[in-house]
Amino acid sequence: MDNNGLKIRVVLVEPLYEGNVGSTARAMKNFGFSDLALVNPCELEGQARAFAMHARDIMENASVHSTIQDAVGDSNLIIAATGNPGMRVEEHIRAPAYTPADINTMLEGRNGTISILFGREDKGLSNDELKLCDIIMSIPTSPDYPSMNLSHSVAVVLYELCDIKAGSINLAHHFDLDLMYGHIREMLDDIDYPAHKKDKTMLMLQRIFGRARLTSREVQTIRGLVRRIQYRLCHPLDR
Amino acid sequence: MDNNGLKIRVVLVEPLYEGNVGSTARAMKNFGFSDLALVNPCELEGQARAFAMHARDIMENASVHSTIQDAVGDSNLIIAATGNPGMRVEEHIRAPAYTPADINTMLEGRNGTISILFGREDKGLSNDELKLCDIIMSIPTSPDYPSMNLSHSVAVVLYELCDIKAGSINLAHHFDLDLMYGHIREMLDDIDYPAHKKDKTMLMLQRIFGRARLTSREVQTIRGLVRRIQYRLCHPLDR
Repeated sequence: MDNNGLKIRVVLVEPLYEGNVGSTARAMKNFGFSDLALVNPCELEGQARAFAMHARDIMENASVHSTIQDAVGDSNLIIAATGNPGMRVEEHIRAPAYTPADINTMLEGRNGTISILFGREDKGLSNDELKLCDIIMSIPTSPDYPSMNLSHSVAVVLYELCDIKAGSINLAHHFDLDLMYGHIREMLDDIDYPAHKKDKTMLMLQRIFGRARLTSREVQTIRGLVRRIQYRLCHPLDR
Repeated sequence: MDNNGLKIRVVLVEPLYEGNVGSTARAMKNFGFSDLALVNPCELEGQARAFAMHARDIMENASVHSTIQDAVGDSNLIIAATGNPGMRVEEHIRAPAYTPADINTMLEGRNGTISILFGREDKGLSNDELKLCDIIMSIPTSPDYPSMNLSHSVAVVLYELCDIKAGSINLAHHFDLDLMYGHIREMLDDIDYPAHKKDKTMLMLQRIFGRARLTSREVQTIRGLVRRIQYRLCHPLDR
């Protein structure tokens, strides 16, 4: 209940060109957003300020981090913006990918801090970085040339997300989600789940729970269920 | 019936920065568009090509014009993208302004060439230029900072318009619309319409017919009506 409204944080992961950081700040201000986090950004000098125009304040107030974990620390939901959605739906790392319009609908009525990760201009987000994310978002682009300019992606996403109607459903904190995932992983050990399947299954669960947008209460209930399973594994019922 | 599908042309009016022209070409290709027209553009050199990335072909195939009229010549509908919609609804030059999503809905089921004019980075489109347009479109932005980067505006608009379902309703050609407006203006003279109201009324009619998206048949019917009025003005009925 400590959430109050829906907050969107733009996280640029290792941006290479300062012009894009400035343009991102400008697009944020155009659509009424201000929370910018930068992970290991390039040097920000004159060009970044020039491109930010009247949104220099947003760029100057951006938080700077050395890890993504640090940048998204207090988030409820972590969304990866990717221009290269996995073609194979069974590939849990990059799929299923939702459109910005889908995300608008999915967040309606929710409260919490949503971090949206945008990757490097050349290589986007790595698979390990995508694994940190609950939901994969991809802008529907032409198959002939899907690679968008970084700040264009930010502008399109924020254009689509600037009118979400927040509500009274408080999203679980990511800290609690991580505890839940750790707990489930522990349970997989307890049941001797095949090691080579473990990561894939965990990622699948993360994608499912990600798009389900769990509340704190749901997270607690799932953890209770897992605890109960673990207890019964140690204390089988006499039948 | 010579229309076949819905074609969208991006018209940049006197763009000042070559990077924006390149970025515009890239955004166009990202969303599957290719018809770019430039009116008195800045010099396009290395930076334009660098920003166009893999959409250099679109930039190099762009048509270059010395007037807007020339750039939009064969269009059926001319839309002005403006970041500064008139605040007063009675101001017909800049209002009413439709959102890109509205335009998507308005164009559904239509056929024809739609030219979308984007103005200069610093001053946008002049009032005289807006008068050439049938429909005013404005991206909903934060009142705190509504001024978007030129290529960001293009990206957001094309993102919104890339999935319009064309149909079987052929939009009138702008050439015929212009004849109709000329005809109506002639009629205003015939009825001694107050000179100081004439331009305003014409602009209002243009905005009304613009958003009504007239077909050729409707244009012909309106011209027939105007002709009839003119005839009766010269040949009053004996009553």
